[in-house]
Amino acid sequence: MEAELKDMIDDLESLKRSLPDSSLHASIDKLELRVENLAKMAMSATVRRSKVKDMSSEVVDSNPYSRLMALQRMGIVENYERIREFSVAIVGVGGVGSVAAEMLTRCGIGRLLLYDYDKVELANMNRLFFRPEQVGMTKTDAAVQTLADINPDVVLESFTLNITTVQGFETFMSSLRNKSFRPSKEGSGVDLVLSCVDNYEARMAVNQACNELNQTWMESGVSEDAVSGHIQLLMPGETACFACAPPLVVASGVDERTLKREGVCAASLPTTMGVVAGLLVQNTLKYLLKFGQVSSYLGYNSLKDYFPTMAMKPNPQCSNAACLERQKEYILAKPARDAAAKAKMEAEASSATECSLHADNEWNISVVDDSNPDSVEATSADALPEGLTHELPNADDFKKSPAPGPTDTSIDDLDLLRKQLEALNAD
Amino acid sequence: MEAELKDMIDDLESLKRSLPDSSLHASIDKLELRVENLAKMAMSATVRRSKVKDMSSEVVDSNPYSRLMALQRMGIVENYERIREFSVAIVGVGGVGSVAAEMLTRCGIGRLLLYDYDKVELANMNRLFFRPEQVGMTKTDAAVQTLADINPDVVLESFTLNITTVQGFETFMSSLRNKSFRPSKEGSGVDLVLSCVDNYEARMAVNQACNELNQTWMESGVSEDAVSGHIQLLMPGETACFACAPPLVVASGVDERTLKREGVCAASLPTTMGVVAGLLVQNTLKYLLKFGQVSSYLGYNSLKDYFPTMAMKPNPQCSNAACLERQKEYILAKPARDAAAKAKMEAEASSATECSLHADNEWNISVVDDSNPDSVEATSADALPEGLTHELPNADDFKKSPAPGPTDTSIDDLDLLRKQLEALNAD
Repeated sequence: MEAELKDMIDDLESLKRSLPDSSLHASIDKLELRVENLAKMAMSATVRRSKVKDMSSEVVDSNPYSRLMALQRMGIVENYERIREFSVAIVGVGGVGSVAAEMLTRCGIGRLLLYDYDKVELANMNRLFFRPEQVGMTKTDAAVQTLADINPDVVLESFTLNITTVQGFETFMSSLRNKSFRPSKEGSGVDLVLSCVDNYEARMAVNQACNELNQTWMESGVSEDAVSGHIQLLMPGETACFACAPPLVVASGVDERTLKREGVCAASLPTTMGVVAGLLVQNTLKYLLKFGQVSSYLGYNSLKDYFPTMAMKPNPQCSNAACLERQKEYILAKPARDAAAKAKMEAEASSATECSLHADNEWNISVVDDSNPDSVEATSADALPEGLTHELPNADDFKKSPAPGPTDTSIDDLDLLRKQLEALNAD
Repeated sequence: MEAELKDMIDDLESLKRSLPDSSLHASIDKLELRVENLAKMAMSATVRRSKVKDMSSEVVDSNPYSRLMALQRMGIVENYERIREFSVAIVGVGGVGSVAAEMLTRCGIGRLLLYDYDKVELANMNRLFFRPEQVGMTKTDAAVQTLADINPDVVLESFTLNITTVQGFETFMSSLRNKSFRPSKEGSGVDLVLSCVDNYEARMAVNQACNELNQTWMESGVSEDAVSGHIQLLMPGETACFACAPPLVVASGVDERTLKREGVCAASLPTTMGVVAGLLVQNTLKYLLKFGQVSSYLGYNSLKDYFPTMAMKPNPQCSNAACLERQKEYILAKPARDAAAKAKMEAEASSATECSLHADNEWNISVVDDSNPDSVEATSADALPEGLTHELPNADDFKKSPAPGPTDTSIDDLDLLRKQLEALNAD
């Protein structure tokens, strides 16, 4: 619009020059003034806050980070500004993923990677984030537009693709491996993957990618009747993977695949999705910034305001080959972990006079006490805590084809995965 | 901007008429075309969805209510469209109130009344809803701008005022009494008041208004260290009022008044506030649309993902006179309630062969079983459930001045209230 307005000023100037009668110049001047006013109005409509170099804890109205840096003074977080080093990938920018992305953006996360292939529709307006004027845009484009306005300090990368296709999965994998944002980082290029998708196939693709990359991730879901949901932490080899145990949801026995019929849609509510997004990003902040207890599984039954928790150990008979690899590595690394834990305990004991803020284990996670492997029972499919029912059939029921291959992403693995997913879709 | 562009076309037309040489008309025509293009660009930037007469359950991408009407087909809500009859007042349009307002707007609530006196600042950008380009606007104006775009079907009324001032409280009271939206409604003009304020004085003002009007309301709060919060249902005479028992919050012993010092600010997180807003509006939907169990108190301790619940009976020694009036009325109405409950039970027994969707009590509330007044103990200040601590000192500690007068809002009551609030501020 700015360019259009500048052209108009030029046109008016040339018109003025060609006018024979200078008595009409006043009319032209008036028109030029109008155009300048319009330019000002257009400018003010797209005003943005400038980037911020360092997160300040100064308490002034103009500081977008004052209330976050206050977490340090309150003794909750030891070093809040570390958040700028982290990369989080969000797969699925729908009712949960878009709100999770907005929360992380407002928290000043370093880098966000967004994946979705869908477009914004009016039918999405019963959930937070997207606006009616974005209808027709891809969810990734609409999200980047809104998030960049909210916080220009966040590096946003968006991928308009379907991770359950061969090509989409390949791009997904290479984007997770890309370490250009923080080359010194160990492992993959992201610190956490958040799965905010609405179907089984996409969750299995995230599971496959994270098992192959040894990437910690969190899964989230909302039931088809819109009144319950869950979040879950998955650490390859250490906790159950998505194929080890079927997904759980409270108070719902609906099989989501039965809902993908023509003319039928699942219910959804901004409340349930907002709560699940909030719990998911809160768990993310606790995990990244090392405060509080990171939950391994947290359910939300909104009809009864019941919030079940549980821990799940990996299944030694898991049908996912990459998961079995990670399990083996985790067991082999036990002596090193024990030695590190012992050294840490001794260091803490010697500095016991100092009051440290959070003297928990490395990730503040108490999912499984691996000094005594039997102390926390892996919850089997047949022994769920009260109030939990299976959302989907057991993963093994689906796996008629052989499990995917080794951890390297060869074209054979992808072909296998694709065939598996096709078999699932054909059900 | 549209008006400005129209004026410009008029100016160009009159310029064309006054031009002696018609050879210059082409230049003017070109300019007019530019203005028309600009008008189109301005239009597309503010495209809005049109109003919808009836809520349709048709499953098409263009239906903003399809996912909400699906709650009926899923057996969760008996009549979702009733939501358009309800009026909800939200006091405080900050980190919790603004998100609650957006959720209710997207759910298609009939009418929203918003109260706040504050302006949007960059320091608010670490919570959801407000955008950097709204900095400097009043929170009420900015909220109405955003909410009207999201859902033009909702009737929005905003009040830029401070309810703890005499004038503000008077306007607040008369706005709650106004029944023009649904003249046939019993009681006040609103179905529910949501308190989303951040200080004790404002909560006491909401409590006073709701006790006087016999108005059911819900209270919400987030701790100053940003990691815990709560929601609470308050039904005058039936449950504890805000003056009966001090507010509770999990895992926080911080007195909020100590935080109102210069250069010091409370911490806040979009996650905690999003979760509290979600739980608050979920409880609102359950209360208004009669599904599930309405929670009387629900806490959120995010460090441990612990969600305590409890019920609180009114305090017969409450310092609030209007509360004592409501308690008396509630006790006197017991025979009528018992008769109605008996008639309902008999009607249900006679139609027992039919499977009714939700055969609970009128409001699906099991806060206090008043057929046996001692079955649920009113939780006293000294006997809190595990994990709960007082957020603020007991209300009685503040009340050195006599309790406010009778239920009618006379100028004396307001003066008393104002004096009380001033005494609190002077602490």
